Amino acid sequence: MCEANAYLFKDGEEELVMESVDVIEPEDEDTWRLVGIFGDQKIVKGKIKIMKLVDHKIIFEAQPG
Amino acid sequence: MCEANAYLFKDGEEELVMESVDVIEPEDEDTWRLVGIFGDQKIVKGKIKIMKLVDHKIIFEAQPG
Repeated sequence: MCEANAYLFKDGEEELVMESVDVIEPEDEDTWRLVGIFGDQKIVKGKIKIMKLVDHKIIFEAQPG
Repeated sequence: MCEANAYLFKDGEEELVMESVDVIEPEDEDTWRLVGIFGDQKIVKGKIKIMKLVDHKIIFEAQPG
């Protein structure tokens, strides 16, 4: 399976937001809906900082303010 | 390996932009740098429409204008 783990980069650290993410889609400006392999969902606010698929990592960056 | 194929959705169709993408990172507003598993790079303009990791698909949407 090629799901990834989603992290939020905030205050210089990567905080795990969700494991086993399958689908990522924009929900609104700088807001993303993550859907896990079991259909669970989570909304993340921030910009995409980097995605490393081979490493199974998606890193969002929290926006100031 | 968990790389994905990148497509650009334009005029109602998905056009293959790059195969075996490992890294996706923002280059500029609505501009993304894709890095393949062999280090090859490509710049894509558009917004992320949806990413389906289990299906190995990343779909960008071309912006009008």
